Amino acid sequence: MSVLCRPAVWVPENTISMEETLAVARRLHPDHPKLPLVLRMIKNTGVTKRHLIRPLEETLVHRGFEARNRLYVREAQARIPDVVKQALSSAEVTARDIDAIVFVSCTGFAMPPLTAWMINELGFRSDTRQIPIAQLGCAAGGTAINRAHDFCRAYPGSNVLIVACEFCSLCYQPDDLDVGSLLSDGLFGDAIAAAVMRGSGGTGMRLLQNASHLVPNTEDWIAYEVKATGFHFRLDRRVPGTMNVLAPALHTLAGANGWDASKLDFYIIHAGGPRILDDLSRYLMVPPVAFRHSRATLTEYGNIASAVVFDALRRQFDEGLPGEARGLLAGFGPGITAESCLGTWIAPAPTRVGRQVEHTDGLLANVPSALRP
Amino acid sequence: MSVLCRPAVWVPENTISMEETLAVARRLHPDHPKLPLVLRMIKNTGVTKRHLIRPLEETLVHRGFEARNRLYVREAQARIPDVVKQALSSAEVTARDIDAIVFVSCTGFAMPPLTAWMINELGFRSDTRQIPIAQLGCAAGGTAINRAHDFCRAYPGSNVLIVACEFCSLCYQPDDLDVGSLLSDGLFGDAIAAAVMRGSGGTGMRLLQNASHLVPNTEDWIAYEVKATGFHFRLDRRVPGTMNVLAPALHTLAGANGWDASKLDFYIIHAGGPRILDDLSRYLMVPPVAFRHSRATLTEYGNIASAVVFDALRRQFDEGLPGEARGLLAGFGPGITAESCLGTWIAPAPTRVGRQVEHTDGLLANVPSALRP
Repeated sequence: MSVLCRPAVWVPENTISMEETLAVARRLHPDHPKLPLVLRMIKNTGVTKRHLIRPLEETLVHRGFEARNRLYVREAQARIPDVVKQALSSAEVTARDIDAIVFVSCTGFAMPPLTAWMINELGFRSDTRQIPIAQLGCAAGGTAINRAHDFCRAYPGSNVLIVACEFCSLCYQPDDLDVGSLLSDGLFGDAIAAAVMRGSGGTGMRLLQNASHLVPNTEDWIAYEVKATGFHFRLDRRVPGTMNVLAPALHTLAGANGWDASKLDFYIIHAGGPRILDDLSRYLMVPPVAFRHSRATLTEYGNIASAVVFDALRRQFDEGLPGEARGLLAGFGPGITAESCLGTWIAPAPTRVGRQVEHTDGLLANVPSALRP
Repeated sequence: MSVLCRPAVWVPENTISMEETLAVARRLHPDHPKLPLVLRMIKNTGVTKRHLIRPLEETLVHRGFEARNRLYVREAQARIPDVVKQALSSAEVTARDIDAIVFVSCTGFAMPPLTAWMINELGFRSDTRQIPIAQLGCAAGGTAINRAHDFCRAYPGSNVLIVACEFCSLCYQPDDLDVGSLLSDGLFGDAIAAAVMRGSGGTGMRLLQNASHLVPNTEDWIAYEVKATGFHFRLDRRVPGTMNVLAPALHTLAGANGWDASKLDFYIIHAGGPRILDDLSRYLMVPPVAFRHSRATLTEYGNIASAVVFDALRRQFDEGLPGEARGLLAGFGPGITAESCLGTWIAPAPTRVGRQVEHTDGLLANVPSALRP
């Protein structure tokens, strides 16, 4: 039994609003032939605000890969401890109880990974397994949960800490002027998330099955070009249209567990962009409100890469769920890869005892009535 | 039950001998104040030959991080298929039988990881789990085996492919002139290794228990500095002396299984350098001949990073072992992290049936008599 406990999520103090994003695009690219298209696409993201690890004007100046990566490490080390402590506290475990750390981050690079620093500085045991994953981008949120789940399956009763540290603004590349890059400049945000998966006890999402799915021959659709100036994010225009091939994989996963992916009680979906959420709700045949937590993350924080699913899950914790509610979590990212899993809700005993969701009502049973279509 | 089957190992056609290495050092650094020390240290490595992914003169010219990383990807894609096919063939499985791919490599960076390309091009199923690890350096050989083992524990009967792709020569930095860098220039080599871990059946090293150990406060001892020119390897002079703190972790692991780490039948140890092997044999109280396979890898290929343990294990397969022989495998790398595991030998049934090692004789029972001290 593996229970993903309440995630802790931190966003930086510096913010940039949609209006500021549009103003920056107009200021920096006044003569760009596709500027009107880019502005329209940015507006369509619905991202009203994002958070930046450094102030906006500093973010816009590229001081070199070396300086940026040092900044990545310095800020990560300054910010991670509080997020981790909060995640441990929510799960009612201590650092000494953790058997493995899955650390996912695609916006900076460190060898040794930051897991080594965490073990040294944050009280984890020296025999803690380190599982750092840097190459799965936004999908890594789902990957982290799935590999943590696998670890708990392998070693029943063990506990895994997951950390997703994404400073997307440190991958801003001023010289990348294609539409995909300019859109990305208005889409991604910074955040750190942490969550504990408990191998016994705990409340939250109890993991049942997980799956990975690669969409054939789409390697180039979401990719980094690695250059002297760092990681250059490449986003193909076909990416938003991938849900028609990923939705069947989610149906397959649910079906393998005897569930109907269209009739679950909660959905935690990577908010890559608005069309991904729109399309997936259509292909899964669930109302848009089903993805309200992912939509809220996108609106308030932008696409925070591997941290999205943890922030959306945090919102699900805030809203609450009755015990035994059934849900689906899915991360999407480069490959194109979907990392998804199913789970049932373990509600805190004192306040939820005896309450059971009506599965026949499916999703809407748990949606605040004001939000129902 | 998880059995690590016979690894396939490939080294590039281009070679550099010890004499050529020394000549290059003399030619490039005639006035370096520490040149005599560096030459002495390189001689002491005992590395008689290394293999380079590109010819020597091309390797010595740094054409930028972007060009190098493209070369890394291009060469990896050209060379990996045959190594993988050989590993699959040795394990008597096909690509369709593989449930997860652990891909370890610290000498280039790709997002999506090369696992996505492998799934697309080499016949793996689209639901194959991708576990790419880039940040554990030389220790990642042990990590890959341990995480593959964990996956087989989590999903009994599944099969995991491990690929270790290390083109260390693509991290050569002509402007790094400290002693650690100049020594590294004479120590590391290029190789690709692949091996299948079978969740049922198979012959080779049957995995029993694994462990990770981080040496406190040694993060800076083996590390990359990330710069516009790529990854800059930093090697602290204290690294070769870490065996006194890592040997106890190996004793603990063996002890937890009721074994004595000093009295095993085979040892597959990361050959970081000669002193690591010398010291560890002393601290484990085993004769130097116990590490003959690691020593052979070091001598013939240099330190091939995460691929070392697979090459040493391949040599153990060549030598053969009786069924039930007991052994220890350990990777060491940045952190400083040791990733180690225990296993017993599953010999091919037809030729080994009925033969059992005498455990009381320990290691020397399996050493060709000419090699015994």
